[in-house]
Amino acid sequence: MGKVILTGDRPTGKLHLGHYVGSLHNRVQLQEDPENEMYIMIADQQALTDNADNPKKIQDSLFEVALDYLAVGLDPSKSNIFIQSQIPQLPELTVYYLNLVTVSRLRRNPTVKSEIQEKGFEKSLPTGFFVYPVSQAADITAFKATHVPVGDDQQPMIEQAREIVRDFNRIYDTDALVKPEVMLPPKGQGRLVGIDGKGKMSKSLNNGIYLSDSADEVEKKVMKMYTDPNHIRVEDPGQVEGNVVFTYLDIFDPDKEKVAELKAHYQRGGLGDVKIKRYLVDVLQEVLGPIRERRAEYAEDKEYVLDMLKKGSEQAERVAAETLDEVKAAMGLNYF
Amino acid sequence: MGKVILTGDRPTGKLHLGHYVGSLHNRVQLQEDPENEMYIMIADQQALTDNADNPKKIQDSLFEVALDYLAVGLDPSKSNIFIQSQIPQLPELTVYYLNLVTVSRLRRNPTVKSEIQEKGFEKSLPTGFFVYPVSQAADITAFKATHVPVGDDQQPMIEQAREIVRDFNRIYDTDALVKPEVMLPPKGQGRLVGIDGKGKMSKSLNNGIYLSDSADEVEKKVMKMYTDPNHIRVEDPGQVEGNVVFTYLDIFDPDKEKVAELKAHYQRGGLGDVKIKRYLVDVLQEVLGPIRERRAEYAEDKEYVLDMLKKGSEQAERVAAETLDEVKAAMGLNYF
Repeated sequence: MGKVILTGDRPTGKLHLGHYVGSLHNRVQLQEDPENEMYIMIADQQALTDNADNPKKIQDSLFEVALDYLAVGLDPSKSNIFIQSQIPQLPELTVYYLNLVTVSRLRRNPTVKSEIQEKGFEKSLPTGFFVYPVSQAADITAFKATHVPVGDDQQPMIEQAREIVRDFNRIYDTDALVKPEVMLPPKGQGRLVGIDGKGKMSKSLNNGIYLSDSADEVEKKVMKMYTDPNHIRVEDPGQVEGNVVFTYLDIFDPDKEKVAELKAHYQRGGLGDVKIKRYLVDVLQEVLGPIRERRAEYAEDKEYVLDMLKKGSEQAERVAAETLDEVKAAMGLNYF
Repeated sequence: MGKVILTGDRPTGKLHLGHYVGSLHNRVQLQEDPENEMYIMIADQQALTDNADNPKKIQDSLFEVALDYLAVGLDPSKSNIFIQSQIPQLPELTVYYLNLVTVSRLRRNPTVKSEIQEKGFEKSLPTGFFVYPVSQAADITAFKATHVPVGDDQQPMIEQAREIVRDFNRIYDTDALVKPEVMLPPKGQGRLVGIDGKGKMSKSLNNGIYLSDSADEVEKKVMKMYTDPNHIRVEDPGQVEGNVVFTYLDIFDPDKEKVAELKAHYQRGGLGDVKIKRYLVDVLQEVLGPIRERRAEYAEDKEYVLDMLKKGSEQAERVAAETLDEVKAAMGLNYF
């Protein structure tokens, strides 16, 4: 049976290679299966939960994220791309689900716990951020998603959604809501380390290569990439573990034999960092070149992109409205 | 300048004399001032925040509350009577406001604090109930209410709404939202004590006289009313302070001279409880008779009542939609 898949991104910046490896590439593959029904949400409302005082960032990023989507090959005729804030049914579902989740249950959510710490929210936690697992359950269930592609760290969010579905269907004696399954990323498509080798690629760490970066920028970033700090002279033996250049080659170079050769050469010494970096630049340009070109084309046609988002949102709203009708009928709120 | 007034009730039971004295009577007077714009909300969504597992009670009560409204003389041509759950803009506003209020600010709300205790929610506090001050701010601001009639104990709710308005307008550089003012009940129209004299009239204490009670029921309840437990024989002097019969006579008998006479007689002895109770029955029937008659008429015409609620909700939705448009434009979420 086909899957109904909900996925998306918070529009708080352009998308980078980490997004590409971690999810975008996988989505493009998923959309090619005609059995799958794909919903891809630009989560502006969720982005506001911890950016309430910076709506400009979200507005600006929203269009960029849409360009990134089209650039990597997400196809609006196969994937329903829409904007969260344009679907009024989502906050309605959220409000009803909030009654089914206790405050202490939300406090126990490991994902939220660690995010609160990360963001330094201990003392001034916005309630919208605190309750976002419930809003995410609304997103998932509005489209009756059967599968949600998430990283390991996001599994508690899906667990929360499953609990809400279970409780709602039981209390209101209905099968209106569908329990979502976690869809872990395919092997090797987990998190991508940043160019500094210090942590996962992320905007806040400023260690990313963006899908929108020019060829020059990509080259500059690769040339600064973290390799083996003890590999000082070309003739020194070098280490490939933790060496970001080789991590990237493993992921992006389809020529696995060549990568194995380079690794062996590097390990026994005689292969300079500049050389492997130049090679990686070529490999990355192979991947990023076509993306960059498509991105530039779509960027010229703002009207097309907006129209795509509008139509996608309208279509998503139709589906969400049907679910909300069922939900309200189950609760007995369909008075007229 | 005219006032925009938002008020309403949670549909968790029929309305009683306490509601009549505390708010309904005042509303009927307010609606007669053509300068006032009245919004009267049946808060089914809010009722669900602590009745999520009993939607039937809310469904059943909703129609009864509408009957009570019409029975006391609320007039849909002067007051916009609507159902909260039929206004999808309210949850949308709620979701945006939740980002502007911290969890610890909500914890400090004295009204919520004492309600949590009353309801025994310390351990299993539904998040929807916890955040209802924010949802109430959405109700108030959606209609740009300038005045909200509330009891003393509800003042912190209005303060919370005022804070949200202040923060929203500042952060998003707008004047879309209007700061509501508290409108305390007119003198003598505060809380009505229940027939047991133990606390305010309330469904949970089972000490109420309902607007829908038959003449017989009213009589029976008055005859059981708490008077002066030391006033045993007719010739004994009796106490009027804390004597519910006299409390009610003070409120409901327009003949103040007569009440003063009765009080004096009762205090010096020689006036029996049965006699003053029979007199109070007559006084209350004067008030409740016409209400009961109108109520019975409307109860016969369910279609009219539903149509009134539908039209009221449609009209309310138009107003709320305009506010939401302004709110989303201020936040930059009007992409299309």
